[in-house]
Amino acid sequence: MEIGVAYYPEHETSEQWPIDYKKLQQAGIPYIRIAEFAWSTMEPADGVYNWAWLDQAIALAADYGIGVVLCTPTACPPIWLVEQYPDVLPVHKSGKTVGFGARQHRSYYSPNYITYAIRIVGLMAERYGQHPNVVAWQLDNEFGGETKYDYGDCAKKAFHHYLADKYETIAHLNDTWGTVFWSQHYQNWAQIPLPAPIQSDVMMWPHPSLELEFARFSSQGLVQFARMQERALRHWIGERPITTNGFMFCWGDNINWVDMFATLDVVGMDIYSDKPHEIAFYSDASRSVLSKPFWMMEYGSGAGQLERDMRIIEERGCEKFFLFKMKPFPWGQEQGKGSKELLTLTGEPSFNYGVVQRYTQGVAERKTVKPPVADATVGLYYHFDSSWSYQISVSDRLPYATYVVDTVYRPLFELGKQVDVVYTPQQIKDYELLIVPLHILYDELLEEMLISYVRGGGKLIVTTDIFRKNDANVFLTAVPKLFSALFDWQHNNFVTDALDISQPIVLAQAAGKGKAWLISRDSTLEQWREVLERVCEE
Amino acid sequence: MEIGVAYYPEHETSEQWPIDYKKLQQAGIPYIRIAEFAWSTMEPADGVYNWAWLDQAIALAADYGIGVVLCTPTACPPIWLVEQYPDVLPVHKSGKTVGFGARQHRSYYSPNYITYAIRIVGLMAERYGQHPNVVAWQLDNEFGGETKYDYGDCAKKAFHHYLADKYETIAHLNDTWGTVFWSQHYQNWAQIPLPAPIQSDVMMWPHPSLELEFARFSSQGLVQFARMQERALRHWIGERPITTNGFMFCWGDNINWVDMFATLDVVGMDIYSDKPHEIAFYSDASRSVLSKPFWMMEYGSGAGQLERDMRIIEERGCEKFFLFKMKPFPWGQEQGKGSKELLTLTGEPSFNYGVVQRYTQGVAERKTVKPPVADATVGLYYHFDSSWSYQISVSDRLPYATYVVDTVYRPLFELGKQVDVVYTPQQIKDYELLIVPLHILYDELLEEMLISYVRGGGKLIVTTDIFRKNDANVFLTAVPKLFSALFDWQHNNFVTDALDISQPIVLAQAAGKGKAWLISRDSTLEQWREVLERVCEE
Amino acid sequence: MEIGVAYYPEHETSEQWPIDYKKLQQAGIPYIRIAEFAWSTMEPADGVYNWAWLDQAIALAADYGIGVVLCTPTACPPIWLVEQYPDVLPVHKSGKTVGFGARQHRSYYSPNYITYAIRIVGLMAERYGQHPNVVAWQLDNEFGGETKYDYGDCAKKAFHHYLADKYETIAHLNDTWGTVFWSQHYQNWAQIPLPAPIQSDVMMWPHPSLELEFARFSSQGLVQFARMQERALRHWIGERPITTNGFMFCWGDNINWVDMFATLDVVGMDIYSDKPHEIAFYSDASRSVLSKPFWMMEYGSGAGQLERDMRIIEERGCEKFFLFKMKPFPWGQEQGKGSKELLTLTGEPSFNYGVVQRYTQGVAERKTVKPPVADATVGLYYHFDSSWSYQISVSDRLPYATYVVDTVYRPLFELGKQVDVVYTPQQIKDYELLIVPLHILYDELLEEMLISYVRGGGKLIVTTDIFRKNDANVFLTAVPKLFSALFDWQHNNFVTDALDISQPIVLAQAAGKGKAWLISRDSTLEQWREVLERVCEE
Repeated sequence: MEIGVAYYPEHETSEQWPIDYKKLQQAGIPYIRIAEFAWSTMEPADGVYNWAWLDQAIALAADYGIGVVLCTPTACPPIWLVEQYPDVLPVHKSGKTVGFGARQHRSYYSPNYITYAIRIVGLMAERYGQHPNVVAWQLDNEFGGETKYDYGDCAKKAFHHYLADKYETIAHLNDTWGTVFWSQHYQNWAQIPLPAPIQSDVMMWPHPSLELEFARFSSQGLVQFARMQERALRHWIGERPITTNGFMFCWGDNINWVDMFATLDVVGMDIYSDKPHEIAFYSDASRSVLSKPFWMMEYGSGAGQLERDMRIIEERGCEKFFLFKMKPFPWGQEQGKGSKELLTLTGEPSFNYGVVQRYTQGVAERKTVKPPVADATVGLYYHFDSSWSYQISVSDRLPYATYVVDTVYRPLFELGKQVDVVYTPQQIKDYELLIVPLHILYDELLEEMLISYVRGGGKLIVTTDIFRKNDANVFLTAVPKLFSALFDWQHNNFVTDALDISQPIVLAQAAGKGKAWLISRDSTLEQWREVLERVCEE
Repeated sequence: MEIGVAYYPEHETSEQWPIDYKKLQQAGIPYIRIAEFAWSTMEPADGVYNWAWLDQAIALAADYGIGVVLCTPTACPPIWLVEQYPDVLPVHKSGKTVGFGARQHRSYYSPNYITYAIRIVGLMAERYGQHPNVVAWQLDNEFGGETKYDYGDCAKKAFHHYLADKYETIAHLNDTWGTVFWSQHYQNWAQIPLPAPIQSDVMMWPHPSLELEFARFSSQGLVQFARMQERALRHWIGERPITTNGFMFCWGDNINWVDMFATLDVVGMDIYSDKPHEIAFYSDASRSVLSKPFWMMEYGSGAGQLERDMRIIEERGCEKFFLFKMKPFPWGQEQGKGSKELLTLTGEPSFNYGVVQRYTQGVAERKTVKPPVADATVGLYYHFDSSWSYQISVSDRLPYATYVVDTVYRPLFELGKQVDVVYTPQQIKDYELLIVPLHILYDELLEEMLISYVRGGGKLIVTTDIFRKNDANVFLTAVPKLFSALFDWQHNNFVTDALDISQPIVLAQAAGKGKAWLISRDSTLEQWREVLERVCEE
Repeated sequence: MEIGVAYYPEHETSEQWPIDYKKLQQAGIPYIRIAEFAWSTMEPADGVYNWAWLDQAIALAADYGIGVVLCTPTACPPIWLVEQYPDVLPVHKSGKTVGFGARQHRSYYSPNYITYAIRIVGLMAERYGQHPNVVAWQLDNEFGGETKYDYGDCAKKAFHHYLADKYETIAHLNDTWGTVFWSQHYQNWAQIPLPAPIQSDVMMWPHPSLELEFARFSSQGLVQFARMQERALRHWIGERPITTNGFMFCWGDNINWVDMFATLDVVGMDIYSDKPHEIAFYSDASRSVLSKPFWMMEYGSGAGQLERDMRIIEERGCEKFFLFKMKPFPWGQEQGKGSKELLTLTGEPSFNYGVVQRYTQGVAERKTVKPPVADATVGLYYHFDSSWSYQISVSDRLPYATYVVDTVYRPLFELGKQVDVVYTPQQIKDYELLIVPLHILYDELLEEMLISYVRGGGKLIVTTDIFRKNDANVFLTAVPKLFSALFDWQHNNFVTDALDISQPIVLAQAAGKGKAWLISRDSTLEQWREVLERVCEE
């Protein structure tokens, strides 16, 4: 894989640039990722632009053989925009407006924010779209980070449109959500509140259907904003790839990343971890979104075992690997402890500078940057909507992502399995083993696919909570076909009974040429390890 | 006792009703409790009524021999009412208005809420008051649940009236509360704030007298609203009993339940517990409010040991026992884990369905539903105002209810004692033993009664904090008569000294024909067990 | 030392005063501290004054040989002032206005508050300034207590003036704070927000430079308000000393106490502790502010080991020692558990009354009140700004005060060392040992002084974090001279490396006639104890 690093020319004097570029060149780093938060430097006042520094920084990089991944700066609207249009600011679920003074202080639903964001993106595209040293584009920064959920008026209005599009009539929404419960019938869209919790004396329960739709809406809102940026770029940039730096690792799965990357050219992700199986999972998860090599957009320059980590990531299909970041920030919110990055505060190379240097020399000797990815024999299903259902549950909350990564994936990793993460029924392949954990929401197409997969000879593991609720987060009152088809389950009670069973393997049943296991949702890491070892050996 | 169950005809199609009623009939269940949250179904828009479903559901129940306890639906004002009159919504102590979208979103002090609530109650009374199959009425649902304390403008105005009624002059309030401290003198009622806490950098202490009066006011506000509903019903319903489902168990003692039930016909309570002594305590507490058989309005259908629990409750005077609920809710805030109720999600009988069936068959064979309650030999005093005083204390907070139930009552229960809970001096009877724990607020009549009780031959236990404060939550500066009369206490220092003593029995003294024990307030469960064993044996 | 006690004549009837004064006289207590919260008694309505009670209480005290320390009542503005001018109230960082109903509900930046506060102070000065029985004045009460940080509009405007004074141009502020990071460039002063945190979904990091300036500004605001009161008094009171009761102990170091006391006549402090080393530290810290005897303005009357504590305090230079308080408050926010003070709730002498009585008799026999303070051989540096830097850090938060007191000072105390607390470079003397812990902010003058001190023969201990950041809370990118001058440190990496070393003594190096030790910042109490023992023995 090729190495890059985040660099902030606007943080330096132009005299410093050649010194820094030289150090990158000596480390064999051929890419920098720049400009991601530089809006106020590019446009210090409304309609007043300053491109000279960026022109020069990009051009000078070329002199050192360093290509540029250019980022749109939209995660940080400048003070003048916020001051001029207060609706640019999102509203926190506490009801307080998120103020200027950090980052991500923008409502994805504010027409003013969108107008100005797309304007600056368009101007960048026009100016640098055909620049020979701009090799790729990154949209924004970590969409859905601090402020994915917006409880302001613009968001509320957009949410009502979303619901009206989806449910068509308010009666249909009332029926689907069961608003007859507690006299919650709505008469029109505008009456539907955003699910901001009230701290009452005791509790004020959130509505499960409302919450799930708001999670979907909030994911979709970010994706739509990303598409607007993408469209503003395409016209100008030709064949150059567009990505963004997703943060599935840290923000979890608050965005449906399959939706987000559906129209982009390459998957970009950020990972900050020191656990091998976690690094491996998010690498597999990144490659699997578009089923092709991905880019690591941010990986910690201060990582304790960088060499090991890079190997894990490369083996799972990373094509470009960007460290974050070249230097410590002396000031500002991310000054931290002033710890070492590739360089120290005083500009000296750190240990990891040497690690990178040795790696790039090795690549130069190998003369290839293609990632050596093995074919996967195991598929592990990841369902964003089920994860959201569990996250918003009051009585049955489960840490979906942690469960999948630390309880299910970890033994697979330690058994040396190569794993695809499967996000949609269409992505299911002829794996030896397919695991579908915590898929609590019913999906008819997936049900069909699973039945065919097993009958065709596959091994399938599902958990006891599978398909308990419908798409609106409402419990089913009839048993889905999957139970009779795969488990010969003839009871009426569905898996209500199975939920009470404490042994890990509740049912194991051959069906057609394959076999299916129903595993208790409450199984521990050790139990999963035993189950997976046994199933893999069969 | 007779069995009933919560049922929600508005959650079902009318085709489902006969199926469900049949199942109830087969279980021997002669009562359903219905309509408690159905306001928006009864009155889908302002002044637009839909009674057909309720007419039919009640009539059909009669066909299956099932009597109806009809509930007023006032705990859930519909969206149109909230939208039309925003002051219907109460305000949380955080200063945030409690929004529509759950339940209990109503200010007991809003004239608009009261007007509409009493209108719907009156219309129900007129329509169903003489219905032969409506056997009793329940007011509202769990008064004082999520939103007992209201910090809105309507509540504030009402609180000022309450204070003016009680204190007559602002000078009297200033003197009583000691507002000379920290220059807190008020000049008029309107200046008195509600005791919503401010999160200051360090602390912003609540005023003990203000807090206690607000707790009293908030209890009284609920009681007054209940009385309005009661009066709206009486004219129409003849001899049919009126109750409500108190939630002393869960919300604790935030309402003075003696006040609440003073004008009602039967005490109704909800209990959700799996601890035998806790179930027993709240059963005793329920029976003791009016000193006659009570109704259990809600008990969990999914209870793990329902048979045992029913026996405990029945032995303590329960006359009607309503399970909550017939079926799991598939949607809405109480969907929980979709666990089993009397039926499962798919409509199959659960284990507890069989428990109920066997119980009702047994009753049919016994041919009596009269609860077999033994006479109590022990009285345990419960003082709501003292509990509130402890709950609001900053420096000396104590979990009054937990202390009474888990530390004092539990050993009595395990010793097999039959206990009355005593709420007022007038309820004191010739018990062998009377226990008055944590009665920190002085009560002159109670003092007289306790002295007479002991001199007349009773055994009395009080704790070292007894009568330390006056009715305004202000420390007394002279020693109450009780200490000399019962303990021959001649010191001036009152129990300040006793508070420092760590042994459980601080004083034990014969007085007249009886004997009194002063027990350290800080005694543990084990210490209470030993004390009670010893005292009972004397 | 001489004994005094807090007394509240306005809490009593005038008939009670002679009784109470008699008791003080009998205990040998020659001072009372009065009126600190009595504004609403002095001025019950705007411009309406009631001095008779205070005239009488002061005059009567003289009859019993009791001198008066008179306090300005400004910590508790009356309701009429708050009602008339709402901007009197400060705003909490949550954005909520701190309401009337406790104390410290005043914005130090409200022109209306200042006008009325200075008016009442001026009237008191005029009336009692020359009173023969008023021996000293106390300003306000525990400045910077509950509401040091004010997030209201008056405070914001004042903060902008503070920044404009300090930075002169917005460009200079932008450069110094590094607002280029995350596009935080400001265009004018009015755009700069107060650092009230937003609870975002994940985090919304505070800006380190903004936070530190706000801490400085907030300290300065209190000092300026104190100066206004001081000036209002000076004209009238002649030579009588002015102090205030600082609360360095409890509120920590949220005020720069050197600034606060710079123009006052004597340092007054409050301490509430039962830990000998903590009592000793804050006594040393109090004496060291002005390097002369100090007054203990409040010490708990209910202290468990009052005799021991008084000895510790007296030995460290306390000249006047005021207990808090004569009697328990029966009502109000500080009623607590009604525990004993000098008297009990019922007016009886407590154990500590006897302790005081015996002490004053001893003093009478010794015929001297001069504190017997030994010369200090150890200096312990305390830097308010470094403490604030650590308090506001997100990634590297450290409890500065706790570290200094419990980890560094405690072993010194247990080794029997007499310690000066050193607040400024100018206060450094020829100590045997000087310790400068956690001084993370660079100070050029201090650097010079430390180098001279060591070269001149002193022993110096600094911690590995010394001088890592500049005055704006921004990391330095070059190594300060101190490292080469004292430790012969030639690396470029400054102490970034040292921070990773876990042994307590990172470097120890002779320089000139003295020696310097670089101690790991993360050393524990036990490690500090060993280091200090070894260094003291050398």
